[in-house]
Amino acid sequence: MSLLVVGSLAVDTIETPFDKRERALGGSATYISLAASYFAHGSDIGLVGVVGEDFPEHAWKLFQGKGFDTSGVEVIKGGKTFFWAGKYHYDMNTRDTLTTDLNVFADFKPKVPAKHTSPDYLVLGNIAPSLQLDVINQMKKKPKLIICDTMNFWITGAKDDLMKTLAKVNALVINDGEARLLVDHPSLVVCGHKLQEMLAPDNHRIVIIKKGEHGALLFYDQFIFSAPAYPLEEIFDPTGAGDSFMGGLIGYLTRWETIQYATVKRAVVYGTVLASYCCSKFSTEAIENLSMDQIYRRFRELQSISSFEDEPFRTQKHDSAAGTM
Amino acid sequence: MSLLVVGSLAVDTIETPFDKRERALGGSATYISLAASYFAHGSDIGLVGVVGEDFPEHAWKLFQGKGFDTSGVEVIKGGKTFFWAGKYHYDMNTRDTLTTDLNVFADFKPKVPAKHTSPDYLVLGNIAPSLQLDVINQMKKKPKLIICDTMNFWITGAKDDLMKTLAKVNALVINDGEARLLVDHPSLVVCGHKLQEMLAPDNHRIVIIKKGEHGALLFYDQFIFSAPAYPLEEIFDPTGAGDSFMGGLIGYLTRWETIQYATVKRAVVYGTVLASYCCSKFSTEAIENLSMDQIYRRFRELQSISSFEDEPFRTQKHDSAAGTM
Repeated sequence: MSLLVVGSLAVDTIETPFDKRERALGGSATYISLAASYFAHGSDIGLVGVVGEDFPEHAWKLFQGKGFDTSGVEVIKGGKTFFWAGKYHYDMNTRDTLTTDLNVFADFKPKVPAKHTSPDYLVLGNIAPSLQLDVINQMKKKPKLIICDTMNFWITGAKDDLMKTLAKVNALVINDGEARLLVDHPSLVVCGHKLQEMLAPDNHRIVIIKKGEHGALLFYDQFIFSAPAYPLEEIFDPTGAGDSFMGGLIGYLTRWETIQYATVKRAVVYGTVLASYCCSKFSTEAIENLSMDQIYRRFRELQSISSFEDEPFRTQKHDSAAGTM
Repeated sequence: MSLLVVGSLAVDTIETPFDKRERALGGSATYISLAASYFAHGSDIGLVGVVGEDFPEHAWKLFQGKGFDTSGVEVIKGGKTFFWAGKYHYDMNTRDTLTTDLNVFADFKPKVPAKHTSPDYLVLGNIAPSLQLDVINQMKKKPKLIICDTMNFWITGAKDDLMKTLAKVNALVINDGEARLLVDHPSLVVCGHKLQEMLAPDNHRIVIIKKGEHGALLFYDQFIFSAPAYPLEEIFDPTGAGDSFMGGLIGYLTRWETIQYATVKRAVVYGTVLASYCCSKFSTEAIENLSMDQIYRRFRELQSISSFEDEPFRTQKHDSAAGTM
């Protein structure tokens, strides 16, 4: 199954309470494609984005090693790659942005190469909703699933565009604060259902609300699935965790001909696994060379920490008197 | 199995964005015992607390109807019952305390009646840690399990007392903010393990961190269990939800001769069920007359929303090459 990933390719300078890394590899498309590569064949993954001539050599080598098709990545002569610098606070849940230099990303107009205009799965990383819509309009064939991300900046600044994009999308991945901002309701359950109503009506409507250390909620048609977080003792660098989640999720889905609830639930759990690994080293370091053993081990751990047995005293018949359970 | 509940018995005036209730029944011991009564026989539940002559007649009738032994509830002649008034904000997660009149609770010295000094299970609701310790010292026989609650007020104002109490306790129920305050670490996983170290060393060490809408984390010896929250669309009145959780949890445990991990996991889920019902009406109204059917239905729903199937392509042997999962 082919997978097209559209998003940012960036250079990040990251400071945490423990360490600092200058000009590391970053960007939503980077994390998404790397995380997806554990499930999809590298050669089935196409990237669309823009970089400057300073995009790190090791990143090109990494993409090449994975077999990604980077023909959709525009390299701007004399241009500089999108640069972000941020500093995480002690609790790792909040961060200050120190620098955002859009550089070549400021004029990004995604051009999907002809050979990528009919992917099975389309992932729209967090870019302007109008650009996400533009990419959808470049599709020659309707993908099995279009999944997108967004952020506060677009919810408050480009809501009309965002609503138009969501109406063409089958799955939305969003964090809890963004969900509440977009729906304007305190209950995440209500938010999830209202967000589903914003999506394309001609397919399953899938909403995934990421809650960081509290796991994720999946809304799939009328079903709700509550996924646990992987119980990490320490977070080294949370940059890209949300994108790794999305990549693990969509990567896993590309293994399947059809979208089914049981499969999407597992995909959310694999997304959780990739996000957990992402946090354990700087930048993309932890998700560059995982083994499937490492991934499956955490999948099983998540199953173990969230499962409980049914009531042994119960039979099919429900007793209604207290004391007879 | 006998259960002794020590805590506050109160009268609450509660205002939410939707409605208001004057002088409703409240108090930690009230919610705990009512929630526990669905699993334990009423006559096995003893209450220790203090009230004034104004304690509502319908509360006495309710306790009597459940069969609770209230011989440990002191009625102070001419005294007034602990009174709390609060107002919830729009998001229902935050509230302002408008009035706290300790009244007879100010001089509360728990006196455990002789017949209750060897309960199988002892629950210490949120009162001063020195009083919790005093109750433990009144025990003639070591209970199978001593479980306690606490709050910010004691963590900051009576930490030494609290640590002495915890060292005699087998299980602690605490919310996420309190856990971080007591341990001073941002990771709840680290907090859970550090809190376990504070508990009595001669038994299972059980810590339950309540995360409200995000569910709960159970730390049981070296195991972690992540329990989902019940997906409520609307919260009517969250007062007493934490105590109802504790009551459902301990009530369920009294059905068992021994403390086992699988049982404690289910107990956490039943606690979640009782807390979810508690939020659906004012005060104790929703947990006064539940059927076991209603309780078990939500237990099964929680099992359904949190379960996912193992990877169908996997066998016992872990493949380590990507693409062969």
